[in-house]
Amino acid sequence: MAPHGEKSDAAEDAMVSGAEKRPVSSVLIVIAMQTEALPVVNKFNLTEVPDSGFPKGVPWVRYHGFYKDLEINLVWPGKDESLGVDCVGTAPASLVTYASIQVLQPDLIINAGTAGGFKGKGACVGDIYLASDVAYHDRRIPIPVFDLYGVGLRLAYTTPSLQKELELKVGKLSTGNSLDMSPQDEASIVANDATVKDMEGAAVAYVADLLKVPAIFVKAVTDIVDGEKPTTEEFMQNLVAVTAALEQAVTKVIDFINGKCLSEL
Amino acid sequence: MAPHGEKSDAAEDAMVSGAEKRPVSSVLIVIAMQTEALPVVNKFNLTEVPDSGFPKGVPWVRYHGFYKDLEINLVWPGKDESLGVDCVGTAPASLVTYASIQVLQPDLIINAGTAGGFKGKGACVGDIYLASDVAYHDRRIPIPVFDLYGVGLRLAYTTPSLQKELELKVGKLSTGNSLDMSPQDEASIVANDATVKDMEGAAVAYVADLLKVPAIFVKAVTDIVDGEKPTTEEFMQNLVAVTAALEQAVTKVIDFINGKCLSEL
Repeated sequence: MAPHGEKSDAAEDAMVSGAEKRPVSSVLIVIAMQTEALPVVNKFNLTEVPDSGFPKGVPWVRYHGFYKDLEINLVWPGKDESLGVDCVGTAPASLVTYASIQVLQPDLIINAGTAGGFKGKGACVGDIYLASDVAYHDRRIPIPVFDLYGVGLRLAYTTPSLQKELELKVGKLSTGNSLDMSPQDEASIVANDATVKDMEGAAVAYVADLLKVPAIFVKAVTDIVDGEKPTTEEFMQNLVAVTAALEQAVTKVIDFINGKCLSEL
Repeated sequence: MAPHGEKSDAAEDAMVSGAEKRPVSSVLIVIAMQTEALPVVNKFNLTEVPDSGFPKGVPWVRYHGFYKDLEINLVWPGKDESLGVDCVGTAPASLVTYASIQVLQPDLIINAGTAGGFKGKGACVGDIYLASDVAYHDRRIPIPVFDLYGVGLRLAYTTPSLQKELELKVGKLSTGNSLDMSPQDEASIVANDATVKDMEGAAVAYVADLLKVPAIFVKAVTDIVDGEKPTTEEFMQNLVAVTAALEQAVTKVIDFINGKCLSEL
């Protein structure tokens, strides 16, 4: 990944250098919701790590296991201590990604999760997208240069072989902390040319870029943002079924990665 | 601080326990912009720490020094590597607060910075506010309980003596990642009953609460959000003058804290 698309080759070269001559050995999967995480945890027989390496008191949950030649860690920001709901959104995603990189030093990050899709850009419920790049749609700072900083565009790590082999749809991902979409968010999403919309991707991309770990984004469409059904209703209705499709996609991605170097993805 | 105002006494008791019987010895000041930070750095003769304890490659800057009986660390998320502007907003603020707590184990966090103020709630340019509580105004998740999570209300550590002695104004702080204010943000700010609006406070409060470090919020008003002047213009116009007022306020706060236990604040 490279910020703002300017330094993609150099940045990717630097990131790849460590892992390009050997197969990927350690993958970190970052998932925001328990409902999204558990099918993947079960699929790979991951087990919760009681001594996660995270600070005392944080709700972050780490699952660990081995699958074929890969060490897999899956982290989930856990439940809010007071309210009991999943810690969705950019701040917990930033923190758990940062802490996980520090503790686990992965070769590759996969941010997997559900997303809203735009039918005007070809998305349907149940589609799996691989994000080509990630940006924010809710950080409006109308001062020159700060405006670009707010958008925070970052390219995902390029995986042309994976995309072709798995026949995944590719689209731009736009991130904001709201499940709904205000007119201002919509204008920014259009400006970002996004096909899918989530609540964590750009934060994971930011941290991965800061710490120079390649990251890819696998997003399953639960609801059509520019459709007739209210987002919340459609999201809740499709969440469980779509997470099953997400698990299958993540499994195919992991199977494809196994035994390959980063530069072969 | 306590999430959602439900457990304030218990949470504060737990946090205070370590430091209540001895004077505060280590203070962490979190500031988002260099222009806001440098007057405070100069005032306390803090020096930049080259080996900050932060991971290689992050732009976060740590200044350190001693003042009277206090060890002071001031952290600033630094400049965006590609764009050269300050890393404002909630994700960098979350990360630098988290990393600083891990490295420095402070007794107390002061999140200081500029803010927009609402004249309808009594704010004027140059006013210094101590936040009574902090919440988000740009995390709309219209699902029961998730809606409350999105608002993320947290109480600041209670400092009645400091507030009285320094004659600081007290108001509620609302945080979002945009400098402007959309109608949806405005509705949430009204619902939050906020007097001041910033881009980092609720994220600092979230991390401080996660890691059980008491935090206070000192915010200087650069612009009147419900006034006639455009926010960006007024913000840029007043930034330097108001950061001088902010430095004076932070100095008074530090002078007041010096020699006192948390429970005496």
